[in-house]
Amino acid sequence: MNHSDKQKPIGVFDSGIGGLTVVKRLASTLPNESIIYFGDTARVPYGSKSNSTVIEYSIQNTKFLLQKNIKALVVACNTASSIAIPDLKKMFDIPIIGMIEPGAKMALKKSRSNKIGVIGTRATVGNLAYSKEIKKMNSSAYVYEKPCPLFVPLAEEGWIKHQATYEIAEEYLKELREYGIDTLVLGCTHYPILSEVIQEVIGNKITLIDSGVASSEVIKLELEKLSLLSDENKTGVQEYYVSDIPAKFKEVAELFLGRVIDHVHKVDLEVLISEH
Amino acid sequence: MNHSDKQKPIGVFDSGIGGLTVVKRLASTLPNESIIYFGDTARVPYGSKSNSTVIEYSIQNTKFLLQKNIKALVVACNTASSIAIPDLKKMFDIPIIGMIEPGAKMALKKSRSNKIGVIGTRATVGNLAYSKEIKKMNSSAYVYEKPCPLFVPLAEEGWIKHQATYEIAEEYLKELREYGIDTLVLGCTHYPILSEVIQEVIGNKITLIDSGVASSEVIKLELEKLSLLSDENKTGVQEYYVSDIPAKFKEVAELFLGRVIDHVHKVDLEVLISEH
Repeated sequence: MNHSDKQKPIGVFDSGIGGLTVVKRLASTLPNESIIYFGDTARVPYGSKSNSTVIEYSIQNTKFLLQKNIKALVVACNTASSIAIPDLKKMFDIPIIGMIEPGAKMALKKSRSNKIGVIGTRATVGNLAYSKEIKKMNSSAYVYEKPCPLFVPLAEEGWIKHQATYEIAEEYLKELREYGIDTLVLGCTHYPILSEVIQEVIGNKITLIDSGVASSEVIKLELEKLSLLSDENKTGVQEYYVSDIPAKFKEVAELFLGRVIDHVHKVDLEVLISEH
Repeated sequence: MNHSDKQKPIGVFDSGIGGLTVVKRLASTLPNESIIYFGDTARVPYGSKSNSTVIEYSIQNTKFLLQKNIKALVVACNTASSIAIPDLKKMFDIPIIGMIEPGAKMALKKSRSNKIGVIGTRATVGNLAYSKEIKKMNSSAYVYEKPCPLFVPLAEEGWIKHQATYEIAEEYLKELREYGIDTLVLGCTHYPILSEVIQEVIGNKITLIDSGVASSEVIKLELEKLSLLSDENKTGVQEYYVSDIPAKFKEVAELFLGRVIDHVHKVDLEVLISEH
């Protein structure tokens, strides 16, 4: 590894803007690293698409980021993480980290009762991605998954403390509370935006797992092992690319990222596809 | 027009399942007509896609329905209605009815104050499709548009009477009440599912316009004029096609349609595209 490889950015992609909560965690865990984000906002959501389409899009997104010279990849999308990572690892020779494995590992580490709850979109929960991963690591664990489809639009509306958000959280989470879980995985990158409400409704005794935090720690260890951590003594820069700029994009991005995005580059789908 | 043309079905397409509320209205206005529905559930939502993509998909959907021998087409999707209808009319020689024009016309007919509210997805409201159409018909009308992004997932969750739904409706609609509107267009095919809550929150003096009702009346007149109304003395049959079968599809479809769907045919995207 030569010196310049260390200065290369980390690439992050998501089907949309949820992955910006992961960028926030990554920048806080690894402040000296530069980050290039790609949000496939023109083709969101991935959850309703076939496995082969999700794999194809994930390969296109990765190739796009590789042209930006990334040294490692974070797949900041639960759907793409659960479906495309084996293919991406086979095709591309850089460290590739998803959401599911780090989140599952951290949940098992934090849980004492081994009764773990998982909340996510209907697609993620339908695939039982976290359950399978947790059971693979510890076959005696109990996993309860619950889809919470209204949490994504509530997060995008920015209704962080709205009375309706509390009532919706109560409706979704009461079942998990009854199962006696002690750990709850936020299995969708939008959900950390609502973590205060979720924590208040589920109760303070239950540990929330943010897969963005978990994956940031894993990539830090991985880059250390490969001597690929940046050795520059200054804050990294961040660049943002999307395949479409939806209405209210800037406000939602600011909420998710915790700071203002000065500039967002729009990538034409034709470019993405032709790089394939 | 020969006798057998009258017996042909009416085609209806939508980007997903919202258009089933339109099928419900159509079947109630024209009980003897047969209906073929196509929901492009694999490529939903259209609202975040470029105009040229929405036109391309709309042409593919129409060609698919034409192969099923339809005599007329209802575009039961507000986004496709506002973007693709001129192209569809140029390409295909059957009666084609969208949501916007009938909804706008009915709103103007019902309003006394000419102060009209429109609620819809962020995409529909962003395009000001209803405002433009209403102003074209009556330049002195006042139109207030308000996006209500949480109404689609609330309708799909089936939370018709939930306390959270009332609070969300209150938050969205208070602004429109303050403008002194007397008519409110439900500018999204999902919203009739929530019409009771919307009516209760906005107040009984305000007339709700269901574009599905409006377009059903327009297509009835159109078919009458062309002597294309079915002359069979029995209830029409309905067939359902989708490009993907998402989780919970049957329950949501039943809620939207008001009755059970016995069988849904899945159409491969490759078939849709190759017919293009």
